[in-house]
Amino acid sequence: MPDMDVRTICPDDLELVCRHREAMFQEAGFAADTLRTMTLHFRDWLRPRLLDGRYFGFLLMNGRRPVAGIGLMLIDWPPHPAHPEQSQRGYVLNVYVDPLHRKRGLARQLMAMAEAEFAQRGATFAVLHATEAGRPLYHRQGWRQTSEMSKTIAAPTSTSAKA
Amino acid sequence: MPDMDVRTICPDDLELVCRHREAMFQEAGFAADTLRTMTLHFRDWLRPRLLDGRYFGFLLMNGRRPVAGIGLMLIDWPPHPAHPEQSQRGYVLNVYVDPLHRKRGLARQLMAMAEAEFAQRGATFAVLHATEAGRPLYHRQGWRQTSEMSKTIAAPTSTSAKA
Repeated sequence: MPDMDVRTICPDDLELVCRHREAMFQEAGFAADTLRTMTLHFRDWLRPRLLDGRYFGFLLMNGRRPVAGIGLMLIDWPPHPAHPEQSQRGYVLNVYVDPLHRKRGLARQLMAMAEAEFAQRGATFAVLHATEAGRPLYHRQGWRQTSEMSKTIAAPTSTSAKA
Repeated sequence: MPDMDVRTICPDDLELVCRHREAMFQEAGFAADTLRTMTLHFRDWLRPRLLDGRYFGFLLMNGRRPVAGIGLMLIDWPPHPAHPEQSQRGYVLNVYVDPLHRKRGLARQLMAMAEAEFAQRGATFAVLHATEAGRPLYHRQGWRQTSEMSKTIAAPTSTSAKA
């Protein structure tokens, strides 16, 4: 286990979390202008959720410098065969390790902390969306592909917009 | 297009939606006792969401008898490269067609209505979880596999439970 201090994410980490999210998606190949737009809106989305604790998580510190982070949420979800008594799921997002600190097990350490935190909060099932780079790590830790599908929705036609 | 009347889901459809959800998962192979537990909790989860409209959707009616249904939600989601300006996603759930009325395009019709409804409500991106039986239909309509992964979370150990 690397000898890094751990601290919980707090409202002052707003810009750090935004940077981690943008860097993660940039490395996954998304266009810079899309990511600038995303971060503009993500910051406004994140601010109140850091303040009231709906968004929580951990940072690994190299002295005073955060070098890796993970975001966590409990999201409202209809009771499902995978969690028949619960109307929540854990959600893991914005897993990011500074390039200079990779291949040292930091992401694995953050994921173990995430599972422990979900367990403490009573969540029995969790999901995440993996980048291609992250998928093998998650798979080694027991995460499996789900059946989720997505689609970009076309804007309303002029006819239906009048309805 | 089949000649079925359409109506929107309303609070009186609580039991019908529960039956559709349970039948859908039963056909997907989940155990009956798991599904009974799920429905017990799903009903309590659904009731307030039908009342305030957070859960909405459509039924296809054969006269006075609903023979197919679809549930829809707008779920809070961090702005993402697929919807950089929006903090919501459409979610499709509980798509169910009575066995006697299959192979007539009813699910396709419900999905087209779902997309139009999301578009009217301003959602530009939507997700769903497909059963094996449903996947080919969704794929034909342009839905694609996402990178979502899931894991069942172990209960806290006795040591950490004391923390």
